[in-house]
Amino acid sequence: MGLKVHGYPTSPPVRRVLLALAEKELEYEFVFIDLLTGQHKKDSYIPFHPFGQVPAFEDGDLKLIESRAITKYISYVYADKGTPLFDKDPKKMAINLVWLEVEALRFDAAGQKLNAEIMVKPIKGLTTDEAVVEQLGAQLATVLDVYEARLGESKYLGGDDYSLADLHHIPVINNLMKTKIKALFDERPCVSAWCKDLLARPAWQKVLARFDK
Amino acid sequence: MGLKVHGYPTSPPVRRVLLALAEKELEYEFVFIDLLTGQHKKDSYIPFHPFGQVPAFEDGDLKLIESRAITKYISYVYADKGTPLFDKDPKKMAINLVWLEVEALRFDAAGQKLNAEIMVKPIKGLTTDEAVVEQLGAQLATVLDVYEARLGESKYLGGDDYSLADLHHIPVINNLMKTKIKALFDERPCVSAWCKDLLARPAWQKVLARFDK
Repeated sequence: MGLKVHGYPTSPPVRRVLLALAEKELEYEFVFIDLLTGQHKKDSYIPFHPFGQVPAFEDGDLKLIESRAITKYISYVYADKGTPLFDKDPKKMAINLVWLEVEALRFDAAGQKLNAEIMVKPIKGLTTDEAVVEQLGAQLATVLDVYEARLGESKYLGGDDYSLADLHHIPVINNLMKTKIKALFDERPCVSAWCKDLLARPAWQKVLARFDK
Repeated sequence: MGLKVHGYPTSPPVRRVLLALAEKELEYEFVFIDLLTGQHKKDSYIPFHPFGQVPAFEDGDLKLIESRAITKYISYVYADKGTPLFDKDPKKMAINLVWLEVEALRFDAAGQKLNAEIMVKPIKGLTTDEAVVEQLGAQLATVLDVYEARLGESKYLGGDDYSLADLHHIPVINNLMKTKIKALFDERPCVSAWCKDLLARPAWQKVLARFDK
């Protein structure tokens, strides 16, 4: 079919797609887009991504953007390959849909910004704003309180089985675990066990082995 | 089946769910949650919504939160009722998934905040911050430029047919059309025609007739 991911190796949204492909044991071509030289804003790339961001994805003649749309497509079309990532039972799917939204609109709203503030700014020669980190940390803690209650009821967010709703968190959790934000995860026992389980997944280790250099 | 929506009649996320139910011609009970007295933060409501927001939804013993998870569930489970809201063809579904994400993460990131700044603040006795309005307006304009190009290629965001990706925009567009932000829609011909088409939908008129009093 010719799967292609246009991306930058350390971008969490790019890694979300790479992880879904790894869970599905799919081969793909990685097209390096250099964010540091602004390649994502150049005319040659805009046909792949009108907002000038990564990732962009190709499956034959189908071109997609938005990491979570790409992973949902992969989970649906390659349902029978590798790890199942969503449940076709309507009620179980509905619960997964809820936690997929919670990740995108609540967890990531704080998590991705914390990643940008603590991890990305220093790479760009900018200074981390500690007041912003504190405010975002408080915002993330509120979300993690709800996760702690949920993960006290079921092993994964969507229920007993790992699904796309858990997967979407992994790249940002991986990064935040290298910062002082780790404490917010560690002090919540169910969240902490869930994070350890997610980060140990062979598919994630495979992504890190190829791209975390 | 016993469908119930817990919500506040003018909340755009609540209206997103009411509109999906109207498109599907489904009957439901509306449970009024008074945001003005803080009912959404009270112990009696938290079991329905751990983040203390609206809407919350019930279909028999299934309890859901997050407006876009609820509408996706309704579209999937009640696929054969009323207006079709998603396409089962994998490639068409993938394109819809992309625009569903664009709405949630890009359009609404500016649109919902503009609604809060211009429409909600005065109701609460607060003053609209014009600098914030200007910054959010510029952010929305960037998104609408991409929409203008897309809607020059196809009548709706997902393709030739109206879908959930379009529907999710309607409550916020309805509100912003009553503000100076209307100019941003009007000055883009394809976006403007799309907005007129969406706001004229009988299902939306039905929601307004019941809840816009």
